[in-house]
Amino acid sequence: MPTKTADQLIADCGAWWDTAIIDVHPGEIAIRGYPIEELIGNVRFPDMIWLMLRGELPSRAQSELLEAALVPGVDHGPHAPSIAIARMAVTCGLPVNGAMASAINVLDDVHGGAGQQCMELYLEIDAAAGPAGDLVAAATAAILRHRNAGEKIVPGFGHRFHPVDPRTAPLFALVARAQAAAVVSGRWAAIGRAVEVALEGIAKRHIPMNIDGITAVIFCELGFEPELGRGLFALSRSVGILAHAWEQKQSGRRIMGPMPREIPYRYSGPARRAVPPETDSAAGTR
Amino acid sequence: MPTKTADQLIADCGAWWDTAIIDVHPGEIAIRGYPIEELIGNVRFPDMIWLMLRGELPSRAQSELLEAALVPGVDHGPHAPSIAIARMAVTCGLPVNGAMASAINVLDDVHGGAGQQCMELYLEIDAAAGPAGDLVAAATAAILRHRNAGEKIVPGFGHRFHPVDPRTAPLFALVARAQAAAVVSGRWAAIGRAVEVALEGIAKRHIPMNIDGITAVIFCELGFEPELGRGLFALSRSVGILAHAWEQKQSGRRIMGPMPREIPYRYSGPARRAVPPETDSAAGTR
Amino acid sequence: MPTKTADQLIADCGAWWDTAIIDVHPGEIAIRGYPIEELIGNVRFPDMIWLMLRGELPSRAQSELLEAALVPGVDHGPHAPSIAIARMAVTCGLPVNGAMASAINVLDDVHGGAGQQCMELYLEIDAAAGPAGDLVAAATAAILRHRNAGEKIVPGFGHRFHPVDPRTAPLFALVARAQAAAVVSGRWAAIGRAVEVALEGIAKRHIPMNIDGITAVIFCELGFEPELGRGLFALSRSVGILAHAWEQKQSGRRIMGPMPREIPYRYSGPARRAVPPETDSAAGTR
Amino acid sequence: MPTKTADQLIADCGAWWDTAIIDVHPGEIAIRGYPIEELIGNVRFPDMIWLMLRGELPSRAQSELLEAALVPGVDHGPHAPSIAIARMAVTCGLPVNGAMASAINVLDDVHGGAGQQCMELYLEIDAAAGPAGDLVAAATAAILRHRNAGEKIVPGFGHRFHPVDPRTAPLFALVARAQAAAVVSGRWAAIGRAVEVALEGIAKRHIPMNIDGITAVIFCELGFEPELGRGLFALSRSVGILAHAWEQKQSGRRIMGPMPREIPYRYSGPARRAVPPETDSAAGTR
Repeated sequence: MPTKTADQLIADCGAWWDTAIIDVHPGEIAIRGYPIEELIGNVRFPDMIWLMLRGELPSRAQSELLEAALVPGVDHGPHAPSIAIARMAVTCGLPVNGAMASAINVLDDVHGGAGQQCMELYLEIDAAAGPAGDLVAAATAAILRHRNAGEKIVPGFGHRFHPVDPRTAPLFALVARAQAAAVVSGRWAAIGRAVEVALEGIAKRHIPMNIDGITAVIFCELGFEPELGRGLFALSRSVGILAHAWEQKQSGRRIMGPMPREIPYRYSGPARRAVPPETDSAAGTR
Repeated sequence: MPTKTADQLIADCGAWWDTAIIDVHPGEIAIRGYPIEELIGNVRFPDMIWLMLRGELPSRAQSELLEAALVPGVDHGPHAPSIAIARMAVTCGLPVNGAMASAINVLDDVHGGAGQQCMELYLEIDAAAGPAGDLVAAATAAILRHRNAGEKIVPGFGHRFHPVDPRTAPLFALVARAQAAAVVSGRWAAIGRAVEVALEGIAKRHIPMNIDGITAVIFCELGFEPELGRGLFALSRSVGILAHAWEQKQSGRRIMGPMPREIPYRYSGPARRAVPPETDSAAGTR
Repeated sequence: MPTKTADQLIADCGAWWDTAIIDVHPGEIAIRGYPIEELIGNVRFPDMIWLMLRGELPSRAQSELLEAALVPGVDHGPHAPSIAIARMAVTCGLPVNGAMASAINVLDDVHGGAGQQCMELYLEIDAAAGPAGDLVAAATAAILRHRNAGEKIVPGFGHRFHPVDPRTAPLFALVARAQAAAVVSGRWAAIGRAVEVALEGIAKRHIPMNIDGITAVIFCELGFEPELGRGLFALSRSVGILAHAWEQKQSGRRIMGPMPREIPYRYSGPARRAVPPETDSAAGTR
Repeated sequence: MPTKTADQLIADCGAWWDTAIIDVHPGEIAIRGYPIEELIGNVRFPDMIWLMLRGELPSRAQSELLEAALVPGVDHGPHAPSIAIARMAVTCGLPVNGAMASAINVLDDVHGGAGQQCMELYLEIDAAAGPAGDLVAAATAAILRHRNAGEKIVPGFGHRFHPVDPRTAPLFALVARAQAAAVVSGRWAAIGRAVEVALEGIAKRHIPMNIDGITAVIFCELGFEPELGRGLFALSRSVGILAHAWEQKQSGRRIMGPMPREIPYRYSGPARRAVPPETDSAAGTR
């Protein structure tokens, strides 16, 4: 501290919060350099998501492909922990923002991370295959490598509820259309399909691409980093979380647990016993 | 429990999670009755937000007005607690969904609730004035009623940083355009303006409508309930929260607090003292 | 900004984070003035909770009464939303701190706020009765006032599951013992009993004090502010939240929702329908 | 579904929430088999933490060692993101439980996970050395292995603020005393010291054990799993989070960001520019 001047300390304090996203001054807001008053009414909400995350505005075609990928992720019903938590949360007194917080928090590695993991798998296959390599061979090698490392499922493929995920085909068709229009390269769609083929070769049955697998294709085609795949899913699912929180709130129910009290949970611990007298011994129980 | 059959218990358990939003069966997902495969590529993301929250699809004009209101709320820079928290969170090791959770959670009454409170104020003025009443008189009475109840600020008006909020005018112009096209009634824009006039009459200075005030106008014009005003703001700000979390994550910084350690906080507690011997007395200190 | 010197700005920045709780310098930590090395091994954990929240160390008797009140709040089983959320959260991939966050968040007004609300009721009765007033009369008036304002339940009394809450009597006995030893005044135990009597007079049936009612008595007897009643409950329940998160984590289950998928939820929305063509009209559906 | 009877479905639903921690029936609560009314007033709060997490009650000596380890973790001042977030959160309108949620959430891998990682390191050294092996050699090998894998710091050793962590020595003395009384084996204290010696050999300077390193010793000595090290730290720090949230709440400040607005952050993005006309091209910007 003694070696710095006050001005240097203030500069350090400002630099502590360095950002290239937004510049705000009295009466003036600019996002990535664009004055906010020029953005309002002139850009679409998906454009704004892209601009905030990427630094530049997308083309209309890019924006619409991103938008299409955001639509089906909004909800998968109250069996999903994120949705159930949002509904339970409002019955505990939380406003919708609080319910969203508790719910979005659980879109973690297992529940919300499959898209990110699938993007990482695609990137791994892309790098291993190189520009001219055999994608199915690279996919097979990658799947076996992960399997040998103890990973039981291939993220983005198969679904424990849907034999065929109804969200995959329509999104795949949009990617094909975008590829035909040279909006995207189609490289990642090919990698996705290669994984499907490789998986069938390994498992000896068809394990179709699910919503995470196809949105991973789209996000890779559009140039997003894997962790943003998780982030974009969180933005999408936030809509469903909010909608369910709001629907539940209107019911007026108080303190809703996972099931009615009349259905008892199963207790598998010790039978009733007396609290033992205290001891100073080092034994496991006092 | 003994008075119910097993089938009744199962029905109760299903009814516990009653929803009118989504129906999911193996291979089949329908949102508000619309098959997901028909929605993908055919509806815009703002349409999907509307459908989830309201039960029906909006017209294109409604959807675009909603979209315009979602654009400017995405960010207001790292001085906002929500943004600062998101950035700090990732330096503690959280993935982006976790950072979003901690940050969206603080979009509460004071930070994210102004839009909701402003909508409630507009509804109060609407009800008090009735179809033919004087809106400025009703607004003046409402403001004074809240002031007498100890509320210090009028939500949606004035800004501690912007003398004039640059986001208000362009959004107001879109409302006027929508009113001219009979997309909205203009009733709530008139109420918003009436509050501005009433406030100036009371405060003897111009206190202009801010972003919360104009988005409250739009959400009321579009028929949203007040708590959804808070929810829609949370959806919008989530974009900025994600973008800042991601930008910060790329910096690689670890455990970033609110300011550099070189700038000390101020300690105003007791001077150093010894821990006193324990006593059984009831005195405040042992 | 131009009117301040750099030194003043630094002082402002330090004052922004003003605290009387802790003073930290290189090699030196003092809590409320006590050097950390003197506290370690010399004070009990409940002492530390008290010191942090109140600024002074408690007597042993005060500390033990606080401790007794913290013991029974740790858990009430997986039907409680807080516990269910913690268990679901770890199956989504969250570490225990993340599960605690999503769960503690829902200890809000309805689920975790009853103790705080009960303390506020006791304070209201205390103020209304004054030193020599009739507590049952004051309690009756307060209950009726809240009932007339639309509040349906009296916080701290009655339990939707336990006809008699098994946690109340042993805690009440400890308050009586502390009162006999002049550790507490007994004023708040008397007010709690008065509420029970008043309630029986109004409802014409016995509605016994529950865990929230008796811990509210204890926290008032010990001089805590109402919002700290909520905070102390959150500290206590955190233990159960952590224990359940940990137990669930060891099960290895992935993405556990509120009930098995085989038990379907009830969908009560519209039947399948086609997405209508888009329109620019202002009608509710496009 | 058709292959199961209704009774089986109910049993499945109950088993879904299987727990060995708590059994609750009307008028009856038992924790790990102990009736709640026998626990209240008879066990200490640290006993309760142990019972919930481990299934059995600790001896008094075990409980006191655990308690000592919980005391110093409560707080490290507002430069810690967890504490800063709690303080900012209440100024946004959150109650204390909500502030705790946003704050505890960030006690993740980097901010709250060092204790867990240190326990994992100790376990790794213990297993590598075996009962009779050279601990310093095993520690040196483990440190180098992690360093070669790209890990820059050894969790539990060194502190970016304290040249010597004032919390380490008094806790170490308590471990020595417990070892002398045969409460703990001392194995993990020896491993901790071996890491310190190994680190000095590698770095050619003394890098002393910090609070995470010594609490990791204690939690290992007491038989806790590594992830519970993180959980116990979260319980401890929750006290400081609550205390700071409460202190800040009493200030009445609204929407407190990381620093006063008068200290500007640094914007490093593009200069002001006009929103370009929309295009359908696939170019990066529209």
